[in-house]
Amino acid sequence: MTLHLSPVIRLPRMSVAQDVCAAGERVVPEETPVALTYNGSTHAVMMASPSDLEDFALGFSLSEGIVSDPADLKSMEIAEHDRGCEIRMWLSDRCSGSYQTRRRALAGPVGCGLCGVESLAEATRPVKPVTGSLRLQPGAIKAAMADLSEAQRLNREARAIHAAAFWRPNEGVVAIREDVGRHNALDKLAGALASASEPCSDGIVLLTSRVSVEMVQKTGRMGVSILVAISAPTALAVRVAESCGITLVAIARGDAFEVFTHPDRIALRTS
Amino acid sequence: MTLHLSPVIRLPRMSVAQDVCAAGERVVPEETPVALTYNGSTHAVMMASPSDLEDFALGFSLSEGIVSDPADLKSMEIAEHDRGCEIRMWLSDRCSGSYQTRRRALAGPVGCGLCGVESLAEATRPVKPVTGSLRLQPGAIKAAMADLSEAQRLNREARAIHAAAFWRPNEGVVAIREDVGRHNALDKLAGALASASEPCSDGIVLLTSRVSVEMVQKTGRMGVSILVAISAPTALAVRVAESCGITLVAIARGDAFEVFTHPDRIALRTS
Repeated sequence: MTLHLSPVIRLPRMSVAQDVCAAGERVVPEETPVALTYNGSTHAVMMASPSDLEDFALGFSLSEGIVSDPADLKSMEIAEHDRGCEIRMWLSDRCSGSYQTRRRALAGPVGCGLCGVESLAEATRPVKPVTGSLRLQPGAIKAAMADLSEAQRLNREARAIHAAAFWRPNEGVVAIREDVGRHNALDKLAGALASASEPCSDGIVLLTSRVSVEMVQKTGRMGVSILVAISAPTALAVRVAESCGITLVAIARGDAFEVFTHPDRIALRTS
Repeated sequence: MTLHLSPVIRLPRMSVAQDVCAAGERVVPEETPVALTYNGSTHAVMMASPSDLEDFALGFSLSEGIVSDPADLKSMEIAEHDRGCEIRMWLSDRCSGSYQTRRRALAGPVGCGLCGVESLAEATRPVKPVTGSLRLQPGAIKAAMADLSEAQRLNREARAIHAAAFWRPNEGVVAIREDVGRHNALDKLAGALASASEPCSDGIVLLTSRVSVEMVQKTGRMGVSILVAISAPTALAVRVAESCGITLVAIARGDAFEVFTHPDRIALRTS
């Protein structure tokens, strides 16, 4: 569906340089509350760029483990309200039962909810190891990041917008999704690839952002074995990438990058 | 309490420049799942830097509107587990009843949870207008951001760590808190100020990050009337700052900055 909201918008502002100010305008990213509902109840409200919301809904559902197959989203409907967007999803019978059980356990009334230790276990549930056999030359990392930068359409207009892309050695950027939130950008990418039934083991995920642990978990759930990011990883992201077999490349800028885990997938020449 | 976890850690990695690689180390930020529990049930699990967790717990509780006064956190206990940290909080009798009612409404079993429209209303609940009469010279913005940069202790070690600080014209940085997440950094700051009973109407909030709507909402709930950030705001952040009376200054770098709302608090000279 086409939203009335645009992902970027031009706003008035005063710009000040060396104490002298001038009225003018700046293009900034829009940000919209998006309520994700399953079978009539809200699962989460996320602040997101109002674009590619079908991809977001599917990618979020897969990342969160609410569905394991796009076919388990029986139907989806997007509604715009004054205060934000609503994505109404209905689950297949197969998924509805397990969703209801999980939701009851997670979010029951006070006194029946998870205690802290159980919640920590739920938040850190392990990712199935990836097994991709893709190997890359170091030059491919530089080429991929240049392609990523080229493909950031929204960011060119408004800056301050993150992107996640899927890239293959002989094809370049297969898909890119942009969002004010880096987690949302990656969920949108996962949804776009899943709805196109695009195989994921022969390409890499590119990020414009830092790498927190959830970025690694989402990449692993997509079945992608190489993750390349412009900025630095957290220590927990490195540990999870190590344990689930992901090659984590970060601080990828110009000719230089750093490899934190599983360097065997990059053809490195030691000095 | 003193945590065993450090907020930054040195990890091995291969650095690659112009196809030649070398083994070495990099200091990266730690990231830990933190379960926030009230009266024995988990409210949220946040990924955060393991530092200043008491401030985080109080600031989060205030930002989320779970308590309106630090005294309503009757007790707090922090436990370290293999998988993360747990902050166990107990609410005063006055707050326990309303928390239980709100929690039931928000997170009841499937079929009784909020529908999408109700959730959007909850996510966008209005912020009480701020009324601070503080006025600043343009030079103060530059001075404040220089002080902020100077005070980022963790970021100097590991980069990629956000900071939120509270700054007064004649005192400089009164408090600063750092975290891998910008929302957490601001919650930690709010908690630190509240637990010191620090008045907030005579100073400004400084951020190293972009300004999403939640950063404005948190600043408004702290009662601070001027928010200055290094990076750009979203359109929704600008609208909320406008409606609750906050002066939103962004893209503050060197001698230049941009004012998106309520410029009357900055003594500007038009060209």
